[in-house]
Amino acid sequence: MDAPTLEARLSAVAAAVETALDGVLSGEPGPGEIARPARLLDAMRYAMLGGGKRLRPALAVMTGALLAVDPVRSLRAGLAVECVHGYSLIHDDLPSMDDDALRRGRPTLHRAYDEATAILAGDALLTLAFDLLADPATHPDAGVRIALVTALARAAGLGGMVGGQMLDLAAEGRFSDGVAHAQDETAVLRMQSMKTGALIAAPIAMAAELAGAAADERAALSAYASALGAAFQVADDLLDAEGSEAAVGKATGKDAEAGKATLVGLLGPEGARARLAALVDAAVEALTPFGLRAAELQATARFVAERSR
Amino acid sequence: MDAPTLEARLSAVAAAVETALDGVLSGEPGPGEIARPARLLDAMRYAMLGGGKRLRPALAVMTGALLAVDPVRSLRAGLAVECVHGYSLIHDDLPSMDDDALRRGRPTLHRAYDEATAILAGDALLTLAFDLLADPATHPDAGVRIALVTALARAAGLGGMVGGQMLDLAAEGRFSDGVAHAQDETAVLRMQSMKTGALIAAPIAMAAELAGAAADERAALSAYASALGAAFQVADDLLDAEGSEAAVGKATGKDAEAGKATLVGLLGPEGARARLAALVDAAVEALTPFGLRAAELQATARFVAERSR
Repeated sequence: MDAPTLEARLSAVAAAVETALDGVLSGEPGPGEIARPARLLDAMRYAMLGGGKRLRPALAVMTGALLAVDPVRSLRAGLAVECVHGYSLIHDDLPSMDDDALRRGRPTLHRAYDEATAILAGDALLTLAFDLLADPATHPDAGVRIALVTALARAAGLGGMVGGQMLDLAAEGRFSDGVAHAQDETAVLRMQSMKTGALIAAPIAMAAELAGAAADERAALSAYASALGAAFQVADDLLDAEGSEAAVGKATGKDAEAGKATLVGLLGPEGARARLAALVDAAVEALTPFGLRAAELQATARFVAERSR
Repeated sequence: MDAPTLEARLSAVAAAVETALDGVLSGEPGPGEIARPARLLDAMRYAMLGGGKRLRPALAVMTGALLAVDPVRSLRAGLAVECVHGYSLIHDDLPSMDDDALRRGRPTLHRAYDEATAILAGDALLTLAFDLLADPATHPDAGVRIALVTALARAAGLGGMVGGQMLDLAAEGRFSDGVAHAQDETAVLRMQSMKTGALIAAPIAMAAELAGAAADERAALSAYASALGAAFQVADDLLDAEGSEAAVGKATGKDAEAGKATLVGLLGPEGARARLAALVDAAVEALTPFGLRAAELQATARFVAERSR
């Protein structure tokens, strides 16, 4: 499958995500809800609509397609992951975290609204993710839906994304001693696999769960997901080190400024580019058991290496 | 059932909650987790262990006892609600929200640690709540567990607790115009039923779900929960207006200072006390179909009126 076809697929998923989020984030209270305060809803819509590659929903949909999952179901799983991703960006951008002013070329949520609204919008999006997964539209079998809830909770929580953000802040020397902690490659890779990798692997594992995939299929997809997540992070580090703010749509050069160990710092730009190529090869290779059906996910690994966010 | 017996019950539940949280918040990564960063875990333990009446878990356990639910199951449901309650207090206390320095007589989490850690600890606790509910130990039937996930997500999210906190901040005049919004009784009651009532009703409804309770039983419990939640809030407003910081364990007089409409302000202290008595009567009355089995929950309504937190 060549690049234009992948781009068309990503555009189609992005459009479907946009439409679905627009519906989910309507002003009408859902069952069991009392009212939806307009300012909070507006803030959630500002953060979630009108932007982003929608990589995580695309991974759910494309993995689902590989395993013959109803695309309505894989999109819903991807939507839940996207809500968690969106909340994590909102909270990471806060003044007490990364203190970012720009996100996708627009003011971050706490700049466009205010800090309290941004914290609450993030909280509401995280909660919404589980509400979406629990809905029968995601899968008729409650046991499958429960497995999705568990997978997302583990990828997002203390031992996953939130824990990774904590390690990332610690690596910047933000706590107690105020010194950036010396980080070797193992520590950097672990932090990245938690902060970013877990939520890239989640939509892939969740689509496999929707399909009731066999153990060997899940193992192959898991190997793909690990390599893809690592490749994504190296590409992101390269962008931060070398990209311009205008091209990337957010502040760059922040890692070096924060004195933070990254793979680009540890391996050098050339070493990082070689690592990225090896990771893409590993991702592509992991899916060879699926034959041509895996072309789309394999093209995605190459795409991620070219432009990360 | 007289007060000492209720107190003994509350103490027993509080001890069980403490033990269970201590186990859940261990340093050992769970399945699907990569690692649990020590500082984040310590912060979650600081916030969750060693304090609080554990009212919400007690409501789950007592409602469960009324309906012959295995207490292990009702306690797990209560534990999930307590994690959501704990996260909501952490985020509400933040500088950009209520900016509180004290909680249960100790420094709030962002004062004891830092703001970033407090935000992440709250995020991780909210995520953990859904992980707990999804575990088979909560109920063998995945359909029941999914119903619990849905109930908690709706009580906690945009149309429930988080939405209520947003309305509460708006009522203080925190946004755009900077003016405290005129709030009539209907608006105050709606805000309170979202911010506080939803998470008091949740453990009661969740225990009914664990029991597979009949529609008339659920309706009676729901009426009890509404009255109890409203009573809780009036008692809390009275404490804020009349209690000392030392007795309450957190800052008092904050509502008046924030120019916020409360029932004490709208009805006067005497009117609020009369309303409180009427709500307790309504809560007790709602449970008469259960006969003597409801004595414990009825005593809890009286207890809440005497001392809210």
